[in-house]
Order: sequence, then C-alpha cells, then structure tokens
Amino acid sequence: MESTSSEAPWQAIARRKQANRDARIPSQWRIPLAHLPKDPPCFEDGPQSVLQVPAAVLSAEEIEITENYTISTLVAAIARKKLLAETVISAFCHRAAVAHQLTNCLTEPLFAQAAERARFLDQYMEEHGMPLGPLHGLPVSVKDTFDIKGVDSSTGLASLCFKPAEKNAPLVDLLLSLGAVMVAKTNVPQTLSSLDSVNNVFGRTMNPVNRLCTAGGSSGGEGVMVAMRGSLLGIGTDLGGSIRIPAMVNGVYGFKPSNLRLPYGGQAVLVPEGMTRIGVQPVAGPLAQTIEDINFVMGELVPRASLYGEDCVLGEWADAGASKPLQGSGTDGQVVIGVLRNDGNCTILPPVDRVLSEVASRLSEHSNIAVVEVPTPTAWTQAQSAINELIAIDGGVLMGQLLESTGEPLVPWVKPRFKVGEPCSLTRLAKLQAWRSQLELEMLQIWTNTDQYGRKSRKFDAVICAVAPHPVPEIERFNSLGYTSSFVLFDYPAGTIPVRNVVEEDLDLGKALGGQSLGVWDDHCRELWDEENVNRKVYLGTPLSIQVVVPRLEDEKLGKFMALIDGVLKSHTTNSKLTK
Amino acid sequence: MESTSSEAPWQAIARRKQANRDARIPSQWRIPLAHLPKDPPCFEDGPQSVLQVPAAVLSAEEIEITENYTISTLVAAIARKKLLAETVISAFCHRAAVAHQLTNCLTEPLFAQAAERARFLDQYMEEHGMPLGPLHGLPVSVKDTFDIKGVDSSTGLASLCFKPAEKNAPLVDLLLSLGAVMVAKTNVPQTLSSLDSVNNVFGRTMNPVNRLCTAGGSSGGEGVMVAMRGSLLGIGTDLGGSIRIPAMVNGVYGFKPSNLRLPYGGQAVLVPEGMTRIGVQPVAGPLAQTIEDINFVMGELVPRASLYGEDCVLGEWADAGASKPLQGSGTDGQVVIGVLRNDGNCTILPPVDRVLSEVASRLSEHSNIAVVEVPTPTAWTQAQSAINELIAIDGGVLMGQLLESTGEPLVPWVKPRFKVGEPCSLTRLAKLQAWRSQLELEMLQIWTNTDQYGRKSRKFDAVICAVAPHPVPEIERFNSLGYTSSFVLFDYPAGTIPVRNVVEEDLDLGKALGGQSLGVWDDHCRELWDEENVNRKVYLGTPLSIQVVVPRLEDEKLGKFMALIDGVLKSHTTNSKLTK
Repeated sequence: MESTSSEAPWQAIARRKQANRDARIPSQWRIPLAHLPKDPPCFEDGPQSVLQVPAAVLSAEEIEITENYTISTLVAAIARKKLLAETVISAFCHRAAVAHQLTNCLTEPLFAQAAERARFLDQYMEEHGMPLGPLHGLPVSVKDTFDIKGVDSSTGLASLCFKPAEKNAPLVDLLLSLGAVMVAKTNVPQTLSSLDSVNNVFGRTMNPVNRLCTAGGSSGGEGVMVAMRGSLLGIGTDLGGSIRIPAMVNGVYGFKPSNLRLPYGGQAVLVPEGMTRIGVQPVAGPLAQTIEDINFVMGELVPRASLYGEDCVLGEWADAGASKPLQGSGTDGQVVIGVLRNDGNCTILPPVDRVLSEVASRLSEHSNIAVVEVPTPTAWTQAQSAINELIAIDGGVLMGQLLESTGEPLVPWVKPRFKVGEPCSLTRLAKLQAWRSQLELEMLQIWTNTDQYGRKSRKFDAVICAVAPHPVPEIERFNSLGYTSSFVLFDYPAGTIPVRNVVEEDLDLGKALGGQSLGVWDDHCRELWDEENVNRKVYLGTPLSIQVVVPRLEDEKLGKFMALIDGVLKSHTTNSKLTK
Repeated sequence: MESTSSEAPWQAIARRKQANRDARIPSQWRIPLAHLPKDPPCFEDGPQSVLQVPAAVLSAEEIEITENYTISTLVAAIARKKLLAETVISAFCHRAAVAHQLTNCLTEPLFAQAAERARFLDQYMEEHGMPLGPLHGLPVSVKDTFDIKGVDSSTGLASLCFKPAEKNAPLVDLLLSLGAVMVAKTNVPQTLSSLDSVNNVFGRTMNPVNRLCTAGGSSGGEGVMVAMRGSLLGIGTDLGGSIRIPAMVNGVYGFKPSNLRLPYGGQAVLVPEGMTRIGVQPVAGPLAQTIEDINFVMGELVPRASLYGEDCVLGEWADAGASKPLQGSGTDGQVVIGVLRNDGNCTILPPVDRVLSEVASRLSEHSNIAVVEVPTPTAWTQAQSAINELIAIDGGVLMGQLLESTGEPLVPWVKPRFKVGEPCSLTRLAKLQAWRSQLELEMLQIWTNTDQYGRKSRKFDAVICAVAPHPVPEIERFNSLGYTSSFVLFDYPAGTIPVRNVVEEDLDLGKALGGQSLGVWDDHCRELWDEENVNRKVYLGTPLSIQVVVPRLEDEKLGKFMALIDGVLKSHTTNSKLTK
C-alpha cells in the first residue's frame, strides 16, 4: 500500500482513504454481487435504476423502518417507545451501506459512531422518560464539507485527507442537541464547482434513478442518500444550486434557505476564510423525501439557529398544522404565484417548460391561488454573469495550492474551467457588489405594484420556475446554473419540488427545438435536446421538478408555499369546479 | 459674491450655498436679535440652553401644535380633521427655522416645498375623506446624506454643492408614500467621520441643551432638530454611533436598526458604491422625542421596507397596545436584562456608571424583570479595532478627491485623523471579515447557556450599557466610539434612552478618578474627568443616557424592551413591593 516512485502523492493517499472507507462498511452489509449494477452503465441495457435494490437485501423490519416513516412519525415512534433508536439507526445505516455500494455516495460512513450514539439516546430515554430533543433518533447525513469532530472534511481532495476536524460545525452541534444521529458524510465534486459529484479520492457518485444520468452536485451524495432513504434528512450547501440541483436530479425535495437562517460555519476551508462574506455567501439547507419533512425539521432548527451560529438570526417557523390559513397578497387573501420562464441565457427545453405549464394550470384551478406569467427581468439574465465573477474573486489560489501539494490532477469537467489567477482588486469587488445591488433593486420591481401616490404593494407571493432549463442530463452534461445561482446572488430562498417523471410523450421524438440560440451557454443547453447530440430516451423515467422562490428571508413562507403547491399537485381533484 | 483670486474655489461655493440657504428662511420667521444667543458661547455666562427660545417667539397655536402632540396623536388629529396638514407643517417649519437660527442645524430648509405638499395632503383628505397614509401630515427631517429629488446631498462638501439629486432615496419615497412631509435636511460633520457636526460649507451645529457642549454627529443636525421639536421625526444614519450619539448629547431617543430593516439606498456617495457592502454597512434609523414615537413609526416603516429597498426584508412590528405581554427568557417569562459596564478600552466615568447602576436597580425592582451583570467579553473590546480598520478599507481615495477638487481644507478634528491611502487588498479584507466572524461567534456566547448535552438557551433578552463612557463633552472633545461602533460591527440593533440630567452630586467635585488608564483611547477619555483638563460643571444639566442592545434583526424586540425600560424609569412607583 506504500506509494511507488512512479505515482504522485495523491494516489497513495486516495488508496489509503478508500481502504479506510471500505473497512467501515460491515461485512454483513455487503451486497451480493447479483444485486450490483453493471459498471460502467450502458445505454443499451435500458433504464438503470437501483432504487429498488434495498428492498431486496434488507430485512422486513429494516424495510418497514426505512420506508414507512416520515421524519415526524419516526421521531414520534421513538418518543413513545414503539421503536428503539438503536434499531432505527441500525436499519438506516444498513440501508446507507447498501445505497453506497450501489452509488458510491458516501465519503465517511459513521455507522459505528451512530450505533453508539443511538444506544446513548435509548439510555437517555430510559433515564429521563422523554427524548433528548425533538429529533431524538433521527438519522441524518451531511455533505462532506461539514466538520464533524474526529472525522475528515476532505471534500475528496487528497491534501485534506487524514486531517480530522477538531470540532463540530455549529449546524452539526445544533442537530445533535436536538437528538439527531449522524450516520454518514457524503460525496462532492472536486473543487465543489462541478455538477457531477466526482473527485480523485472517492470517485464518482451515481444517480440511483438512472445511473446513466448525473447524480448532481455539489451536494450530490446527499441527493442520492436521501433518494435511497439511507437517511431521512440530508444537509447540503448551496452556492450555485448545490442543494436544489441534486434534489432535482435525484427526485427529492431540496430547500436553499436565505443567509442567516441556518448556521453555515465549520466547513472545509477551500477558499480563504472571510472570502465568501465579501463575495457570495453559500448557505446550508436540507434535502428530504417530502416537504413536510423539510418543514418539520426547519421548524426545529430555525428558531434555535441564532443560539448556535453567529451567522444566524432569530427566526420563526410556525407548525403547519397549528398555523392560520395562508394569507396571500391577492384579492381576498388569494396566494398569487408568478411564473418565470426563460432566464434569457438558456432556452427552457420542452419537457421542462411543459411541466411548468402543467403546474401553473393545476395551481390556477385552485380557488385560493392566482397564477400570473412574469416577463423575464433583465436583472435575472444578468445575475448569472455577476455571480460567476463574484464566486471567483479569490482567484482560486488556495484551491490551486491544495491540488498542487499532492500533485492531484483536475477531473475532466473541472479541467478546462479551473485556473489559478490573481485575487480581484478591492475596487473591482466594490463595483461588482454595486452591480449586484443594482440587480437586486431591479428584481425588487417584479414583486411590487406602485400606485399614483407612490404607495407600493406586493404583486405576488412566490415565483415558480425551472431548476434547470433541461431535464436530468447524462453524466458530465449538466449545464446552465443560472436558474439556481441567480437566487443565491439575490439571497432569495428557493426550493425544489419533484413533480413527475419524464414519459414518452415528453420526448417529442423527431421534433426539433425552435427559436434561436441565446448564446454560448444556450448552445450547450440546446445540445441536450438535439437528436444529433443526445438520445432523448435517456430522460425517460427521470424526475421533472420545479423551483419555488420567494424574497430574501421569507423562508418560512417558502416552506408554506411549497407545501401548498405540493399539496395541489398531489391532490387528484381540485376544488375549482366547486368554488369558481 | 464672485470668487476673488486669493480664495480657493470652495470658499465661493460655500458663500453661495449659505446665501441660498439663508434665502429660504422667510423673513417673518427671523428671530429678534434679543433672543439670539451670544456667539461664541462663553463658559462664564453659565448654562447655555436655547431649548426655551421657541416658546418665546412662536404663536400660541404654533406652540400648542409643536409641543403638545406625539407622532400618533398628531397624525390622528389631522386624520380626524381637527388640524389641517398645512397648519401643522407651517407651525413645525416656523419652529425649525427658529431652531436653525439658534443652532445652525439645517443644510436644506424645504419650507416652501413642505407647505405645497401639506396643501396637497389637505386636498387629498378633502377628496378621499381619509388620509393618504398613516403618517399623513407628519413633519420629518432627514440627515443631509439622504437624496431628495431636486435638492443637494452635499454633506457640507463644496464639491457636492449645486448638484441636486435626481430622485428620492427609497426611505424618503417610503415616508412620502405614507403621507409624511419633508421639512428640512440637516447638518453633518465634514467627511461624516467626526462627532461634531461642523463643515466648511454650513459651519458648526450647536447643542441646544448647552451650547458649550457638542451637538454630536454624524446625524448631529437631526439630534438638534428633534430636541428643538423642529420636526417630530428625524432620520439619521449610523455607522459608528451616528444616530445614538446625537440622540445622547441632545437628550432624545435614537434607534439604530439592524441592516435589512430600513432602506439605506440613495445616500450621498462619499465612498465608491459597493464599498460599504464589503466593509461595514451603515444603517438608517429614526430619532424622536419618545420611544412611543419611534415604535409608532417603525410599525409603519418596517413591514413595508422590503417593498422600497432592495436592502430590506419583510419585517413585522406589532402594535405595542395590541400585542401580547412581553415574554422574556427568564423564569416564568421574566425579561432578563444584562448589564455591560467597561468595554475594556475606555473607563466609564462616574456619572455614566452611576446612571447605569440606577437603571439596573430600578429595573431589578420590577417583578417581571431580572438584571444580571455581564463580564466584558474580549470580543467587545476588540470590536473597536476591527471596525476602525473595516471602515477605512477604501483608503479615503474618493473623499480625498472630493476635498481636493475645490481646495477644501480639513476641519480641525478631521485634520490629524484623515489621510488618503491605498485601498486595502482583497486578502487583507477577507482576513478582517474572518476576524469579524470570530468576534461575532465570541459575542454569541454571552447570550447563551449550554447544558451538558449541548442544548442551548437564551441567557438574557437585551443588554444595557453606556452610549459613551463619558457625559456629553464640550465641543470637539467627544471620544470613545467603541461603545456604539461595536454594535454596528456586530449588526446588533441598539437604541439610546435619555434617563436624567447631570446634577451637582454627579460631579464628585474634587474626587479624582481611580484605576489605571487602559491605553491611549482611555487617556483621552479620562481627561474628560480630570479637573486639570475640564471644569466638570460644564456637564451640569446635560442628559445622561443608556444604550439598549439586542441581537441582530431583533429590532422589534428592541422597540418593546426600550419601551419597557423607559416605562419603568418614568414610573415613580414600581410594583416590586406588591408582587415580590
């Protein structure tokens, strides 16, 4: 296992790290070869879903525990002693181990620590007659970037391996204080910048819905873990779309909060500290199987966040059940939903536009919802250029050093896109932030009406739009971050709702895309629909999602609107005929 | 009036600007010479208050209107047609004109525009049978930095004179949309950096409580206007203490909100745009005669702020009357107030420490309030150095150009302190902001309790401390910004409550200050109590104030706590004997 003279330092480190990871998968949880998918996946073999494999290899009790509970019903079952935390955590760890063998989603399996923690929680229940907190026994996975004491935050960089964190990230501490159990850390892309979670140390994470497609990034491992139900709550981070995109491509719910809602501290240091504060601030947020799960967890995290993170403020998150009916800004309190279509940079491909229309149509049939189309604001189009420059202000100097120190090469997607340069000047940075303020002011105008006396009112409550202009693409073909990154620039909370899967009719086989390309970004996007460049059948069965967006710090409302929209989409009958 | 060859360009501009200002004071509002104070003020003449002069020169009706209303009762009187807006605005403009002649507090009298606006409002009432908005007819003054269309935002810099703003600042638009009337803009210090509102164009603003003492800055003109009741609402801005200090030295209430609560845009550009966003962000906030006035106005502004400012978020501000009783974090919902004493940089002088102890004692007698002393956190001590460097990141380049372009000299206080340098590097700026995050994290710890399982809870609800470590000093002797600037670094909302005036016993005549100096800042502070350096009798009759502080974005709570504390201080009997 020693490094040979012909190999670079990173290779020996990666081998050791992988061996260490493999050793933490108990042998009794190894999947029989027959259940393992073919590697690499091959288009001719047809749909490449591994979502059903766990059902074939877990015990009946493990399946029951991991498939038949939401977060609230699971913690309630533990709280009333119907289930032991140890049993629950063992079932989820087993399932996480299975998920990992199918998708390579984990960086740090924490199964032994999780079992010990679960026993402690059971003992606490025994001694106190009540749970430690409202998330007592909840299995949680976190993106590899979050520090957990004694565990690496390598993010798949060889130079950061075997350098365990000295303390927990504040969000980890908050989750633990509520009784949660950390079952694993999950995989990310090299440099966190690509939308495929692949790096030299841990390799590539595969999409469990269709292994031909990307698993997304940068919280790709989280998207996969949650889709596979290896944990019921995944914690990711989002700067360009890194929560919402993995949620989209794996068919789960993702929620990118505003800044100040959840603690972001205690992350792997890949840019100099303080740099995100003057550039663009990434945020931490949840991924889960349902919007109810997300609202339940946010309801516990948000009101306590300012006790744990210096980057948080006191927030409320009313229990959906206990709260008053939603009051929107429309006539008689109707909730008004705006629809944003084309961002002006990348044409929305037909299945994505279609699902947006379907959602708009379903919503407009609801008596308490009004839907309005919103013309594309110029500021939305420009936002992508602004954030691209703001993300890169540090010149990648530290990242370059991290890579160089072990001779680590760039992975293919990153290679043409990453270059070490000079940090930008203070004067240029101030200009960029002034531009951002200008764009924010322009965006504000889409939300407001103004009367002849200058009195303003809210025009709509939330916006729906695409998560990406294209369906879930094949590996290494994700494109067009603008639909997600723009809402980080504006610091608007935004979430992903999976709506339905792609069906044959969505493919419009033989029908070419109309209109002109909007530019070089659009060229790449349009290739994903060009039958010369793609076999559209790869999209069959992959999830189609929408994004819901509200203004800054209206996170609680976003949770409510997502639940409202999700409820309408899930209901088979609407009340429109009765009330209109 | 033409510039002569021997004078610099700024001098001719200043002369024209002053003549222009004088011409906007109607001749019938000129004060008889007998009522004008002696200039310069002389210590031997005894107390130098001009607070009572308006009563001698206004009509009985004007006195009734300008002295017997709060903001809420005034707008209510106009709304129920007891008073015409025109009558109200005329009375306040007359009083503002008087205030100006006594203190030199105005930069831009807007009396003609205000009268026209008032007539429009009366007509609106006539036509619609209801007010334009909840501040219909309210006389408001704003710091000179706020843009009002067609009016200069010169801030007393010659190079910015006769360059009228092209549109209103968003906060001005918001106030106008509610029916407010802009009666004047008010004076500021050259470069906004000193704590005396003096500049080459408009001269020095005098403190109406005692003309021997400083009128404060940088919203000095606002502090004076509100103290003189020339307006019922003053809007200032605060970066180092520029709302809270003028409130303190003029004996009124001042409220520095968090970022994101009130629109800050549309200010005179004295540093390159975008610079405050990456350094330290100043905020806009109100000054008023009562905390009820401030809560009333914030109740109208805060919920609408995000419709007007791209730098604001949706906020609530419950009506004090309608809201539930205050729930604090102590036993049985007691409100817990922490007391911070010495900031570790400047020793609190005896009268200031004494009034803090008096307040703590009065509060602790209240059955629903608990008071705890808080040891000085190191982060509070270090904050002053951090913010001093963060405020100066731009190197003063633009300010240097503004001054140089008309050959304008620095005023005495600014002269040794202002130097044009290089903008700081991006790397240094990131380090500074990382340091700030570290200080924020340390400060967070003073607010929280942690149990053995890592569960955290709030330790106290608000903190009281000094606004400055010394009483209201003589002109040019204000010192020790740390007690206020630190809470801008932390973005904690903070407000000034005037408690009582200095009396003879506070002066401890003949008694020297004990203890050692904490350093060079403290040397200057201690001089203000050193009988070799000051005649303490200058402090007689000047206001002693406290500062109330809460964590970031808890502005609504700050309003409630300030009202609670103010109520306790004003009540002559407490209910402690009855309930304890």
